[in-house]
Amino acid sequence: MVKTRGPYARTETRRREIAEATLAIVTERGHKAVTALEVAEKAGLSEPGVLYHFPTKESLLIAALELFDDLEIDPLENGGAYAEAGRQAHDGVRRTNFVRLYSEMSGEAPNPQHPAHDFFRQRWERSNAVLADDLRRLRDAGLVQPDLDLDATARRIHAAWEGLQLQWLVSPKFDIRADLEQVMSSLTGLDPAQAARLLARAQGARISVT
Amino acid sequence: MVKTRGPYARTETRRREIAEATLAIVTERGHKAVTALEVAEKAGLSEPGVLYHFPTKESLLIAALELFDDLEIDPLENGGAYAEAGRQAHDGVRRTNFVRLYSEMSGEAPNPQHPAHDFFRQRWERSNAVLADDLRRLRDAGLVQPDLDLDATARRIHAAWEGLQLQWLVSPKFDIRADLEQVMSSLTGLDPAQAARLLARAQGARISVT
Repeated sequence: MVKTRGPYARTETRRREIAEATLAIVTERGHKAVTALEVAEKAGLSEPGVLYHFPTKESLLIAALELFDDLEIDPLENGGAYAEAGRQAHDGVRRTNFVRLYSEMSGEAPNPQHPAHDFFRQRWERSNAVLADDLRRLRDAGLVQPDLDLDATARRIHAAWEGLQLQWLVSPKFDIRADLEQVMSSLTGLDPAQAARLLARAQGARISVT
Repeated sequence: MVKTRGPYARTETRRREIAEATLAIVTERGHKAVTALEVAEKAGLSEPGVLYHFPTKESLLIAALELFDDLEIDPLENGGAYAEAGRQAHDGVRRTNFVRLYSEMSGEAPNPQHPAHDFFRQRWERSNAVLADDLRRLRDAGLVQPDLDLDATARRIHAAWEGLQLQWLVSPKFDIRADLEQVMSSLTGLDPAQAARLLARAQGARISVT
């Protein structure tokens, strides 16, 4: 990330602190407990200071979702999105308070007047792109079919993930990791559990050959 | 359906009329427009009469979702769930007002205190069972692998459907029918567009043989 100085950098730092405090409250007590006052106390700021940066509860909650994604999606931008999806799905549904916020906000996303609309549009574009990039690596290594539609496959995998998550949260009677990995294997022909290992081997082989 | 008489039948009739009025308002003006008074006027009842049967706005909205499912899922209970899913997904996302209600309520489903929780638990159990039954027909006709896990496949298909619907509603840049049918083909090995035709042929062949 490019480092900036002066007022802009201070604003960014302040916004990040507020997002961290909001995410902490969501994680500990659930998103119903989020108020500007609670966030201000947690972040060591004044309530007007919080409201200056995030004038509504929705904007605070979106900031918490954005921060979570920065922590979760960023590390996968250089590989691992395909291999890690099942584990992420397994861990994700167990973060009860966070996933209830996620679910409630994603349910609002179809409403163009709600701030969740733009957030989820950008989120799915980004996460689909990260996964499509990872599938490209696997394709270039010869591990999936050369004619696989990378963007569509990424979208379908994330769609199954969203839907399995929702069903699991209502009725946790199945292994969400196994289910998601089965869908992924069916769509690509490649078992995600083997993807990381095969990719490392293929890249190692290429290095030793060239 | 078994016909009942007396007070119970009258209660059921009245509840159905209220559900129909609610669904009509949702379809015409969106679920934000639903109030007990609006529903009462539409159904030709008093507001207390509506509130007697449905004491909260959530219970009215759940009644509208239930009625919609009775109209949509029932006709598929004797076949066609697999063949029709793609068309239903295509039509479903275009019912803008209804699908926004559906999406918002499904987002609340993970919260066990919300009435959407029980509704969606039962809904997914029911629709998964209807689809698994249909897959059983296709399996018995030799059109899908004999070892296909019918219940898990039904759950995964509905999961992909939910997730594709959500992405489409936020960013309608893909053909949801094609996407869902591709996921279904990958999971079962059988193209849904061919399923109805092949099943009819297989059943015809069986009848002509025996």
